[in-house]
Amino acid sequence: MDNQQIVLAERPEGMPGDQVFRYEDIETAQPDAGEVVVESVYISVDPYMRGRMNDGKSYAQPFELNEPLGGHILGRVVESRTESYSEGDVVTGTLPWKLYNTVSEEALTKVEALDVPLHLYLSTLGMPGHTAYGGLLKIGEPEAGETVVVSAASGAVGAVVGQIAKIKGCRVVGIAGGSEKVNYLTDTLGFDAGIDYKKPDFAERLTEAVPDGIDVYFENVGGEISDEVFKHLNRFSRIPVCGAISGYNSTADTGPRIQQTLIKNQAKMQGFLVAQFADDAAVTSRQLAEWVKEGKIHTEVSVAEGFDSVPEAFRNLFTGGNFGKQVIKVSESLD
Amino acid sequence: MDNQQIVLAERPEGMPGDQVFRYEDIETAQPDAGEVVVESVYISVDPYMRGRMNDGKSYAQPFELNEPLGGHILGRVVESRTESYSEGDVVTGTLPWKLYNTVSEEALTKVEALDVPLHLYLSTLGMPGHTAYGGLLKIGEPEAGETVVVSAASGAVGAVVGQIAKIKGCRVVGIAGGSEKVNYLTDTLGFDAGIDYKKPDFAERLTEAVPDGIDVYFENVGGEISDEVFKHLNRFSRIPVCGAISGYNSTADTGPRIQQTLIKNQAKMQGFLVAQFADDAAVTSRQLAEWVKEGKIHTEVSVAEGFDSVPEAFRNLFTGGNFGKQVIKVSESLD
Repeated sequence: MDNQQIVLAERPEGMPGDQVFRYEDIETAQPDAGEVVVESVYISVDPYMRGRMNDGKSYAQPFELNEPLGGHILGRVVESRTESYSEGDVVTGTLPWKLYNTVSEEALTKVEALDVPLHLYLSTLGMPGHTAYGGLLKIGEPEAGETVVVSAASGAVGAVVGQIAKIKGCRVVGIAGGSEKVNYLTDTLGFDAGIDYKKPDFAERLTEAVPDGIDVYFENVGGEISDEVFKHLNRFSRIPVCGAISGYNSTADTGPRIQQTLIKNQAKMQGFLVAQFADDAAVTSRQLAEWVKEGKIHTEVSVAEGFDSVPEAFRNLFTGGNFGKQVIKVSESLD
Repeated sequence: MDNQQIVLAERPEGMPGDQVFRYEDIETAQPDAGEVVVESVYISVDPYMRGRMNDGKSYAQPFELNEPLGGHILGRVVESRTESYSEGDVVTGTLPWKLYNTVSEEALTKVEALDVPLHLYLSTLGMPGHTAYGGLLKIGEPEAGETVVVSAASGAVGAVVGQIAKIKGCRVVGIAGGSEKVNYLTDTLGFDAGIDYKKPDFAERLTEAVPDGIDVYFENVGGEISDEVFKHLNRFSRIPVCGAISGYNSTADTGPRIQQTLIKNQAKMQGFLVAQFADDAAVTSRQLAEWVKEGKIHTEVSVAEGFDSVPEAFRNLFTGGNFGKQVIKVSESLD
């Protein structure tokens, strides 16, 4: 079988251009005992990967130069030398960006058939969904009647955050870019208000949308959008900090310092990673799947086609060019 | 009796000059039933008052123009029309800056004689001590063996924070300005290290002082000092945000945004006010008094003399011109 991988050719400054991603033809390693060969079917691209492209302390190990990039992949077992896996099994794992990976069975999780689209295992039932669930409920601790604001609200994490907040009885305001996304928040996801950060009246619209202030701000973007949101924080408000995507490709992410705002409002701002909720992952998955099947959580997905489109799909995360969870379909074998 | 008050003559821009404080001769109101006349003995000046001089949303009501400024005062009852108070009683309260206040008995707290210097009721046993205790223990949650860094470490709050952290078995590093204060931290207060933020090698010295990173940063100053501290945060570190004194007199408190730092370290940054710990005030007072009497908490005080020196003593808080808790002695009647 023809195999290819994508390696980190150079560390990007700012937005990663095509020269950052080098495609290489490779051999597929023969599996040893305890290993399987997995064909990649859906590749997930996620904003946190940008941090791993830098060479410096971050929460995840930096990618190595001239080594494969990688992330969450949903795939199909094509060869197994284990007792646990058989050809045709659907699996997920954090794997290098290769068309075929030969890996230990321990690197994989078998997907239980839940009669939902497969890409959901990379979105609402995967890392983004668990991020939304843990960050909102365990750090944001929203109560019924409170106002929850979420930025990047039509994104893979934001959309789930807002829908869970609705389930919990909150007033939910989403911030996104462009009319299509904003209308999607209110029309499809059932948010109480959607605000377009690209419009000149963003600040006024935000003020109108939170007449009782903000109790929970689920932070995905940082930058000037969030500077504006912070003006409306209530006393004892909570800010789960999931991402700061506006700053990931900039070398100087500066703005108003936050200390005085936190004191004034006795507010809590807490950075988190999905890994810290790992102990509760099974319960979380079951709850999310239940909400999906009850029709309470809707998931939008942007599917790019083909291994060649990975760099462009990755950049879409930062330019707003995607809509919902961005994945790349690299094989037709599970259609 | 000759009485005077200090009113807010204009709202300051930046550092409050003398023109902000207007002295007025006034009559002392005759007490009604249920009221007492209190002679001010020690007046406390505290950084939070600067925020109240602005006209805008803060955590405390703004001072009114042409009305008295005010804050914590320790005084002596000179006339009482209540059953609870007698002439000569020592009391504390949040009172207008007047030489004599005629107030309801409900505005006062009687000071229990604990055989300690009177100014301690405005410092370690008063608001600053309670701020240190609640912020460090309830938000910072330091554990034995962890590294605690505190800024404005020789100040009324910071000195208590560091000494409590030592009592709890932590490595304690204090940041202060000038050799005298820095030496005081290690020689008198028993900190493990003291660092002078005014020296050009501040960043290097800080790095040396926290070889295992920082688990708790008790934030009093904000600004560039804290930007540097944040580089050393550990995973799951906690930042109780008590103050940001470096920014109180500036119109643009800008710098690196904090979101990416919080995510990287899964860190928590939480603003607080001493009022939120009010339910535990009695327990806190007893614990602090015990530590003071055991010699485990030492308190330094800067005493300015005379009602006329209030404006200068207030500015000392922001220029580093004071050492320890700043109070103004306005009467000799309790010597």
